[in-house]
Amino acid sequence: MSQSQDAAGETGIRLDDIKVVLVHTSHPGNIGAAARAMKTMGLTRLVLVSPKDYPSGEAFALSSGAHDVLDRAEVVEDIDTAIADCTLVVGASARLRSLPWPLLNPREMADKVAAHPAGSTVALLFGRERSGLTNDELAKCHYHVNIPSNPDYSSLNVAQAVQVLCYELRMRQELAVPQTRTDWGVEWDQPPARAEQLEGLFEHWEKTLVEIDFLDPTNPRTLISKLRRLILRAQPDEVEANILRGMLTQVDKSIRKP
Amino acid sequence: MSQSQDAAGETGIRLDDIKVVLVHTSHPGNIGAAARAMKTMGLTRLVLVSPKDYPSGEAFALSSGAHDVLDRAEVVEDIDTAIADCTLVVGASARLRSLPWPLLNPREMADKVAAHPAGSTVALLFGRERSGLTNDELAKCHYHVNIPSNPDYSSLNVAQAVQVLCYELRMRQELAVPQTRTDWGVEWDQPPARAEQLEGLFEHWEKTLVEIDFLDPTNPRTLISKLRRLILRAQPDEVEANILRGMLTQVDKSIRKP
Repeated sequence: MSQSQDAAGETGIRLDDIKVVLVHTSHPGNIGAAARAMKTMGLTRLVLVSPKDYPSGEAFALSSGAHDVLDRAEVVEDIDTAIADCTLVVGASARLRSLPWPLLNPREMADKVAAHPAGSTVALLFGRERSGLTNDELAKCHYHVNIPSNPDYSSLNVAQAVQVLCYELRMRQELAVPQTRTDWGVEWDQPPARAEQLEGLFEHWEKTLVEIDFLDPTNPRTLISKLRRLILRAQPDEVEANILRGMLTQVDKSIRKP
Repeated sequence: MSQSQDAAGETGIRLDDIKVVLVHTSHPGNIGAAARAMKTMGLTRLVLVSPKDYPSGEAFALSSGAHDVLDRAEVVEDIDTAIADCTLVVGASARLRSLPWPLLNPREMADKVAAHPAGSTVALLFGRERSGLTNDELAKCHYHVNIPSNPDYSSLNVAQAVQVLCYELRMRQELAVPQTRTDWGVEWDQPPARAEQLEGLFEHWEKTLVEIDFLDPTNPRTLISKLRRLILRAQPDEVEANILRGMLTQVDKSIRKP
């Protein structure tokens, strides 16, 4: 079953249908780091267009466990061969071009890719370390994608750019999963406290505060209201409420000791 | 003029108000790569907690033009010093913990940070290369953040994780919808409590619980962790933290009365 079927019970582009195409990469370390970045996000198809120095031990070293992505990588002569079977081609572009071209941010790119018909193949193009993609290469793309960055220092290296775009593709897929998460983002191991339990806690708390002379009798309400507000914001579970209640009981005992 | 004022004509957390805290990093190259990742996204404040090998030529080499971030980096002894002035602390966490803790994805993290009051300082914590943050370190966080990844290969390196989270922070700023509401949906009348204030509160709390024989010496950590988690979830303001602290002082006095 495809990942997107897993994810949302519907067909669509799978991460396996996306090619990451590195064009004329100079440093093999960047190829390895890009493979690693892809694999962390679940992408598997790497295509290298005329890499300067590949295969390379440095690429394997920097792939750090993503050897399988490098082993499967296709090496091709030119960009046309790399994208021949693709129906959607998106090129990473740092610079503003003289000829305006449809431009996406990484999130919009992920939406476009996800909306593309199932069974088709998508290419993401990344250019040379120093100069990126040429105008001719960018003109082969349906869209350009630009990673928002510091205008004074926009030098993401190619592996970092691959990381960010693959992250957005994975996020798009994960967000398509029907949400079964609780309010706190994780499976909680205790049921939330019931109002009657919390009411008992707050009454007990107020009594104890009077006993230890902490509660200002001229203005008790504000203090108790602030405590209520604080604890309620945290939406305590049953065990947490019991811990607080238990503490109060123990305070009561301690102050009554001879 | 602040960056967020640039972005949306309104006040709020600026990228300059966010500290990236690297805890016990082993490889100086990762520190350099993290500095570069930060700078591409416009973040400037790096804090290093007991780095193994720093300052280092390798860090400067891999920072590739982000020397200014390294030059400004603070090196501190412990995590408490790093986060003392912070009012929102988020820890990057790869593993599922035995004690569930409020968990965000990177996008939700960026939303939380953006909703935090202007003028406060936020910390993002990143752990050791191999083992991440310890449970004690994670218990200092209001939230944990997990980068979605391939379940079979989730080994983002620390610089890649910094890149993804900083990218989300920048995206959040670029997409900035004018936010007039704080995190709680209303204008709050008190500033959020700083980490050092909360740390003092938790230490005091633990001592008092031992004094009143409430803390089980065979298993103190879980109880204290649960208290931390409860209070941190509520993101106490300064007055609320003071109320809790004042109560503890009053309990201490009461049990010592003859």
